[in-house]
Amino acid sequence: MIGPATYYRPEHRASLDERTRALVDRREAVLSPGYRLFYAHPVEFVRGSGTKLYTRDGDEYLDVYNNVPSVGHAHPRVTAAIAEQSALLNTHTRYLHEGLIDYAELLLGSFPAALDTLTLVCTGSEANDLALRVATHATGHRGVIVTENAYHGVTTEIAAISPSLGGADSLADWVRPVRPPVGDGTAMLRDARAAIAELQAAGHGVAALIVDTAFASDGFIPPSPGTRAALVAVQRLVHDAGGLVIADEVQPGFGRLGIGGPGSGDGAASLWGFPRHGLEPDLVTIGKPMANGQPVAGLVARRALMQAFGERVRYFNTFAGTPVAVAAARATWDVLHEDRLPEHAAVVGTELRGMLDELATRHDRLRGVRGSGLYLGVDIVDPATGDPDSPAAVNLVGALRERRILISASGRDNAALKLRPPLPFSRADAERFITEFDAALSELG
Amino acid sequence: MIGPATYYRPEHRASLDERTRALVDRREAVLSPGYRLFYAHPVEFVRGSGTKLYTRDGDEYLDVYNNVPSVGHAHPRVTAAIAEQSALLNTHTRYLHEGLIDYAELLLGSFPAALDTLTLVCTGSEANDLALRVATHATGHRGVIVTENAYHGVTTEIAAISPSLGGADSLADWVRPVRPPVGDGTAMLRDARAAIAELQAAGHGVAALIVDTAFASDGFIPPSPGTRAALVAVQRLVHDAGGLVIADEVQPGFGRLGIGGPGSGDGAASLWGFPRHGLEPDLVTIGKPMANGQPVAGLVARRALMQAFGERVRYFNTFAGTPVAVAAARATWDVLHEDRLPEHAAVVGTELRGMLDELATRHDRLRGVRGSGLYLGVDIVDPATGDPDSPAAVNLVGALRERRILISASGRDNAALKLRPPLPFSRADAERFITEFDAALSELG
Repeated sequence: MIGPATYYRPEHRASLDERTRALVDRREAVLSPGYRLFYAHPVEFVRGSGTKLYTRDGDEYLDVYNNVPSVGHAHPRVTAAIAEQSALLNTHTRYLHEGLIDYAELLLGSFPAALDTLTLVCTGSEANDLALRVATHATGHRGVIVTENAYHGVTTEIAAISPSLGGADSLADWVRPVRPPVGDGTAMLRDARAAIAELQAAGHGVAALIVDTAFASDGFIPPSPGTRAALVAVQRLVHDAGGLVIADEVQPGFGRLGIGGPGSGDGAASLWGFPRHGLEPDLVTIGKPMANGQPVAGLVARRALMQAFGERVRYFNTFAGTPVAVAAARATWDVLHEDRLPEHAAVVGTELRGMLDELATRHDRLRGVRGSGLYLGVDIVDPATGDPDSPAAVNLVGALRERRILISASGRDNAALKLRPPLPFSRADAERFITEFDAALSELG
Repeated sequence: MIGPATYYRPEHRASLDERTRALVDRREAVLSPGYRLFYAHPVEFVRGSGTKLYTRDGDEYLDVYNNVPSVGHAHPRVTAAIAEQSALLNTHTRYLHEGLIDYAELLLGSFPAALDTLTLVCTGSEANDLALRVATHATGHRGVIVTENAYHGVTTEIAAISPSLGGADSLADWVRPVRPPVGDGTAMLRDARAAIAELQAAGHGVAALIVDTAFASDGFIPPSPGTRAALVAVQRLVHDAGGLVIADEVQPGFGRLGIGGPGSGDGAASLWGFPRHGLEPDLVTIGKPMANGQPVAGLVARRALMQAFGERVRYFNTFAGTPVAVAAARATWDVLHEDRLPEHAAVVGTELRGMLDELATRHDRLRGVRGSGLYLGVDIVDPATGDPDSPAAVNLVGALRERRILISASGRDNAALKLRPPLPFSRADAERFITEFDAALSELG
């Protein structure tokens, strides 16, 4: 019997069925060893629809993991838009194309007036890389402040500000991690004050503070009066030091958090996570769900910053803002709004949290249900000690895969389950997930 | 009367037609000022087919500029593949998908056996960024050698090794530019020897030499016995210093150079530019034409390098290697081979060069016709002095736009015209281009 695993490893090979083994062997012969396959028994999907994925044999899996196909797998509106535009034209932004302009106007309408300028790129990594380039040019400083388990991407520059990558991706010497805004937020404020002083003493100065506005890899930190006060204070310190504030909305953005939806208790509706924290960012990066799977990402910024950058630096991104990329982003935007998916995320997210809370009363391995909308985390603990239990979390992920539920373990201890399904996730989907989760928890003991 | 310009500027506004002016105004209000529009009178295209682009009014333009839609604008095979796969499934590389494996096997089959491992990314910038990360991890060194007018991309790391960006994008202190392999190649060899010594003396060591194998921004340098000997010698010096060799095939790759095709005189057929220079790269980056406009790029490497990198570094690229990305790349690959476009590039490229040579006998503004396949350059000079004449080159680009021919000026002096049409460019297309070019040159005087 093969034990649970987040990723396939060679010792699982013998237990694979023939087709899977052959595919895995062929894949390993040609792809970089850095590629990972989920699960001890990797899954091959051939079709998707809404919140479901299907194998070659027609087995249906419920997707509680994938946040990129945000309006649902293979959404017909998005698919049709891609097909139609591909058949017409796909060039670049040095010719005029009205679709790009229409989309930029719509998108910027969802931001505060000061954030009035868009630059499109292809990936969240490129967006954060560009944001940091703009910040270093604008400030003349090099120092960057990040939260202590942050992940912002994989370019050389951005890996160097992503503590969660760990290992050989050590932080650059101009980066200072600070504790995230937990509890009353004073720890973050204290750390930020020290980080600024250190960066200034080292001659780096402060170019930027960058935060994921869901603080997902730091444990899903919801806003509270204390954390809000702390973040606003840190923001002021950064600005006073001549630095800029970058909100990384690549994962939380585009309505996933259900902010302002029914029962969300978050105040004014927003597609973005930053306003509820009291943040007034100078630069906002967006991506993942932006075009439901087409490689589209972006940087939204105050105009003065981009004006200065554009005068000094040549930046052209071949594949960014093409007619096909924009058509996919526009169709995704239209479905998101017409189907009121942010409001739906608020409603179903609240229901799902309620179901998880109820489950936690019956399973003492479950703790700390938290998050917003359809971006939730829950800790798996050792019932005896209450400590994070990573093997149990990984075991649950594997058990749920056998029960045809896709989910992942993450967090600093790899002991939190992360729930971020496509946004059309229904109450029935939530009930199906809870039924299987309940059974898997019971089996685990 | 408005003078010629490579890009639209505010002083051109008054001479625009009403619709164009309205679009430009709207665009400037929402996009970063860093965005540029080609031409004093920007063009709006709404449809493309093969080597032609069409405006809203149905005016047909011949495309001698765009190298991304390599198998032709809106190619029906590629379009159908994208539409079909989008409607089925688009996930990521952590589930099994046979299309990715099939494509990787095909692609690697076009490389020497030692280059046996593929990593997919989304853009050429990401590919070069990753190549350099792998090189710095593998060698433990930081120093990079580039040619003196090289362009390799726009991430923070890659902008810092791209001298052609100039301006505020100054080279990092661990970068040494060397002269490209012109003439007998000894200048490059001498520069490289000095660069290695300097990098070692500064404590950076040598991580990599990176070269665009068409040396396009350095002036399109064809291989000769001298340049080949020089590049092989430089390669040996870099390897002896513990560094790696990166071939940047993002622009020249996928058959554009027509290598080994009829009349090319390049020896063995190859989709890639590096073999004809005698280079045996450790890492090869590919991109632009790879999926005819979908954001797909990649890194092909020796396995040992990726093994070591994968063990030490977590690298996952969300949008890379998705089923849709791979379907587009595969369809592009199939059309490229079934229509024998590399061979076609050799034939038509040779014809086009012949036509340009003939034109140069009648217009003394034309000099130095050079390049391979359908990637050609020609200098525009002052007929009195023979010096590069950038205003004349820009003027010609604008005059050709009025004659519905798309082309660009580039090179260090911005006085070279760069020809890189979609590969189905026909003899009739070449004749149409030459007719208009002839007329524009006559008008210019």
